[in-house]
This record gives sequence, C-alpha cells and structure tokens, in this order.
Amino acid sequence: MKALQLFKVIKDDLKAVDRELQKIVKTQDPLLTETSAQLLNAGGKRLRPAFALVAGKTYQYKSDKLLPLAMALELIHMASLVHDDVIDDSYTRRGIPTVKASWGDQISIYTGTYLFAQSLVLIASCDNRVISTVLADISVKMCEGEIQQIVSSFDPKQNIKDYFFRIKRKTALLIAASCQLGAVACGAPDYHVRALARYGYFLGMAFQITDDVLDFTASEQVLGKPVGSDLRQGIVTLPAIFALAESPNRLRLAEIIENKDKKEGEVLEAINTIKECGAIQKAINVSNCYLFKAKHELKLLPKGRAVDSLGVIADYIGKRKF
Amino acid sequence: MKALQLFKVIKDDLKAVDRELQKIVKTQDPLLTETSAQLLNAGGKRLRPAFALVAGKTYQYKSDKLLPLAMALELIHMASLVHDDVIDDSYTRRGIPTVKASWGDQISIYTGTYLFAQSLVLIASCDNRVISTVLADISVKMCEGEIQQIVSSFDPKQNIKDYFFRIKRKTALLIAASCQLGAVACGAPDYHVRALARYGYFLGMAFQITDDVLDFTASEQVLGKPVGSDLRQGIVTLPAIFALAESPNRLRLAEIIENKDKKEGEVLEAINTIKECGAIQKAINVSNCYLFKAKHELKLLPKGRAVDSLGVIADYIGKRKF
Repeated sequence: MKALQLFKVIKDDLKAVDRELQKIVKTQDPLLTETSAQLLNAGGKRLRPAFALVAGKTYQYKSDKLLPLAMALELIHMASLVHDDVIDDSYTRRGIPTVKASWGDQISIYTGTYLFAQSLVLIASCDNRVISTVLADISVKMCEGEIQQIVSSFDPKQNIKDYFFRIKRKTALLIAASCQLGAVACGAPDYHVRALARYGYFLGMAFQITDDVLDFTASEQVLGKPVGSDLRQGIVTLPAIFALAESPNRLRLAEIIENKDKKEGEVLEAINTIKECGAIQKAINVSNCYLFKAKHELKLLPKGRAVDSLGVIADYIGKRKF
Repeated sequence: MKALQLFKVIKDDLKAVDRELQKIVKTQDPLLTETSAQLLNAGGKRLRPAFALVAGKTYQYKSDKLLPLAMALELIHMASLVHDDVIDDSYTRRGIPTVKASWGDQISIYTGTYLFAQSLVLIASCDNRVISTVLADISVKMCEGEIQQIVSSFDPKQNIKDYFFRIKRKTALLIAASCQLGAVACGAPDYHVRALARYGYFLGMAFQITDDVLDFTASEQVLGKPVGSDLRQGIVTLPAIFALAESPNRLRLAEIIENKDKKEGEVLEAINTIKECGAIQKAINVSNCYLFKAKHELKLLPKGRAVDSLGVIADYIGKRKF
C-alpha cells in the first residue's frame, strides 16, 4: 500500500487498527464474519484511521483513545461502501468481487448495517460526547448525500453547487471528522481541533474531486473498473459539469448524460467531449485550490513531524494517479 | 389506536413523541422528508416509546430525559422495518404501501439508514454511556438476527433454538432495551433496571410468538397482508417448527416449506397441517409461559399505576388478535 508510506509516523498503530478490525468482525455468525472479512481483505487505504492517528500525533498522542475511534471511522466508511455497491449495482471494487457480487443484495444490506452497528459499539466505548455527536450528525448527512446522488443521477441540469453539496456529504465530512476527532480524543484545545477539521474538510473535497477526475483520466487497470464508470451510472461529476457549461458540444453531451441506456460509443464520445474542452484541468484547478486551503490551516498548528506529514499528504493527493 | 389505551399513564408524552418525530424527519432533503413522513403516518403502535415512558413512570419520571430516548427507539424500529421491506420484497405493511413500493429499493435502503442515523443523533444527545452502549450492542445483534433469517429461510431442518435466537434479536432485545433504558434514563437503581430489562425481554419474546401465530390464525383483513405470509417468504416460525416435529404429515410439510415456488394450494395445505396437529396451541402455550415470566418480574418493582399497566399490557398480548 503506497499511501501507507505517507503515514510513517503512525505506521505501527495503523497496523494495530487493521489487526483489531479483523478481530471485531469475527462474530457468532459465520456468514457475517465471512462477508466482513472479504471487505477488510479487499484492502483500501485506511485513510480515515490514518488521518485520525496523525491528527492525534499533532497533539498529545493517546493510543488507547485513538484506536477505537480509528476503527469506528473505517467501519463507517466500509458500511457506506457496501451499501453503495448495492445501490450502484457494482460487482467489483478495486478489481475484487464486492459483497453484493458474492452474496447478493439482501446479505449486503445487512452486512453494511452490521458494520455500521459495530462502529456504534466502538463509538459508545469512546465515551466522549463530541465524538458521538459529530459522527451521528455526519451519518445523517452522508445519507442526504447518497439520496441526492440517486435523485440527481442522469440529470445534466445539476450545477456545481449540487456537486459540492454531494461530495461534502459523501466524502469530505468523514475525512474532516477523522482529523477533528483524532485531536478531540487526545484532548487538544479548540483552535487546534477546528484547524484540523477544516484541513480535513478541504482535503476531503480535493480527494473526491481527484477521484472524479481519475474516473476520466486513469486507465482501467489502475482504477480496477472501466474508465467513465460515473458517467455510465449517471453520476455527474465536476469535469462533466464544467463541460456541460462550456463545451461547444454541450447539447450533445447533455443528451448522452441523460440517456440511461448509453451505448459504449456514446460513453467514449462524452469522455472525449469532457477532455477536449479543458474541463479536466479546470476540475484539477479547483482541487488544487482546496489543497492550498488545507495546507494553509496547518500553519495554525504546532510545527513537527505529524503536521509536516499532513502537508505531504495534501501534496500527494494533488499528484495521485490512482 | 387501540393499543394506546393501554398506555393511559403516559398518553400525553406519547403524543409528544409523535409530534417530535414528525419534526425531526423534516430535513433539507424533500425526498427523505417525504419517505420518512409516509413511514411515520403509516401508524404503528409506538410500542417501544410507550414501554420506555411507562418504565420511566415506574421510577422518578423525567420527561426531558425520556423523550429523546423514546424517539430514538422508534426510529431504530422504523429503520429496521424499511430494510425488512426491501429484503422481504414487501409492497404493503398494515395495508399501506411501503417506502419500497412507492420509491424503490435504492431510496428505501438510504431512508432506513437515514432514520437509523437520526436515532444516533438523539442517542448522542442523551449523553448516557449505558444508553449508547446497550443500543449499539442491540443494533449489532439485530443484524445477526436478520442475517440468520435470510440464511435459514426455506429450511425445514431448523429447530426451536434457531427460532429463539432469531426472535430474540429481531424483536425481544429492542423491547427489553426500551423498558431497561426508560428506567436508566430516570436514574433507577440497578435491581429495578434489571427487572424491567427481563420483563421487556420475556414480553418481547411473547409478542413475536403471538405475531407468528396470528400470521396463521388471523384474517387477511386484520393482518393487512395475506394469511401465511411467513410461509410464503420461507420464514419458519414456531407453529411450523412444532408441526415439522410432530405432525403426521411432517414430511409433506417439509417439502412444501422447502419449495421456493409454492403454489397457493400448497400454502393452504401447509397452514392446515400446522393447524390440525395442535402446533398453534403449543406455540400459544410457549408465549403464555413467557408472559407469566414477564409478570413475575413486576413483583420486584414498587407497586403503582405504572407497574400495574405493565401487567395489563402482558395480559393484553396474551389475548391480542392483531
């Protein structure tokens, strides 16, 4: 896991998170144990636990307080992925069969809810009102983001505000909470917690925009799914929104986006339209703005290896190719 | 709502729960507001909030502490119903179209998760570690129950232990928690809390067994769904388990239960087999045992109107026809 190298400062505890997650999903029920293990072993960057741990390192690191929080964050994320795969009808993720593909929709729905419920057990054990309140609020907002994605799919008339509303809820808030609550768990003062929350929010927005750009520009091999997956599923992302406003072929592009039964040639035509009008670069510029703002927040924090590594992570996201 | 009359002692606060629930599901998102409102307005007995409130009345009633708890309990219950309707492919509940029927699976999955997330906001506001821990543990167990139901469906070889494992998780634990946590929220002493938890557990088991009996014995009009729905869906309940062990036609019954594509005549044949061998009465006897045990727990509590009404509720469940 290349991304892990960025998190040298918390490497050992990140491994501990992984070990403990393996333990916690071993239940009385053999099937839930199996579905959860398949999910865990499918990899993932453990980005949210890593952020919580590094955030802890920026203050007085408390391993025992951070571990259950870090695990809870990953479980919330995993739960949302399982439900996403049902909603999006996805059969592979990162090239590996999804729970949906192996066990079907019914089992997937309860595996997702089960992982979410397991996160609640960990959150309750944190016994910290800020942690439970923030994560409860975010869980509500994540659902709002998902619903908006379903409602707005195949709709070429949505605007940049709709897009930001959605990615904030789908991605940025949980990354913001990871940074924020890592500091909260270690008892950091308010100004410190708030700076990390904003860092995480800006970084999360950039992370999702980059993800959406890569869906157009990366290779199928790197993505583990076909290029243009979002378009095929009717998810209108930032490059598409820019192209719908500015491309000379915008009317034809809108037509293709709206069509729920696109042909392969039409998908490729839409991708070309988006690439040719400079929409990709414009989206990258927006992402870079967010990364700049994220790094700016770090200036408010005490200097040291942990804060440095948050800066390096921001730089990495600006350059990542997968 | 006839059941409401049993809860005279907390009538006004139960109405307040309903009003506040209507408010809380009004969100930024018009669709989530609509789906949640449809669910709320579909009625339901608000049994879990009622138990929490009555439990509070058995000690030093604290309305402000009980209201968020009571609402959270109903939201957890409603969330599980929405997901159930997706899993069971149900188009009506109590004669009213389900969220699934009106908006489809995708929206239903997120409506369920959304209601569950809203319950977490309320639980966090309770700021009571026992409440958050108990409800987190139960959420995990409810998923285990649902998964076991899926895995064991159409399986005539399951036994009474499997059935008890399932209904404990699907129904009894949340009713037990409602009684237990209503007392916890009001600061009742441990022995008091534990007696109410056991009362709720025994009563919840009886409640589900009665539900499963009524699926064979009530009329379609009363049930709001066809008689024998469980059989059709492959859910093997206590009367069926008794009949599978004792009926002279048990081999034929097993054959019908196993068949995923039953004909209407076969469903009726199975119902008759179950009714003729005395399995229904045997299931009712088990339910009555649980009710007896539930009422026994009440002897440990201080006498008064609230405890009396818990006794009346137990009697009512033994006689209920819907």
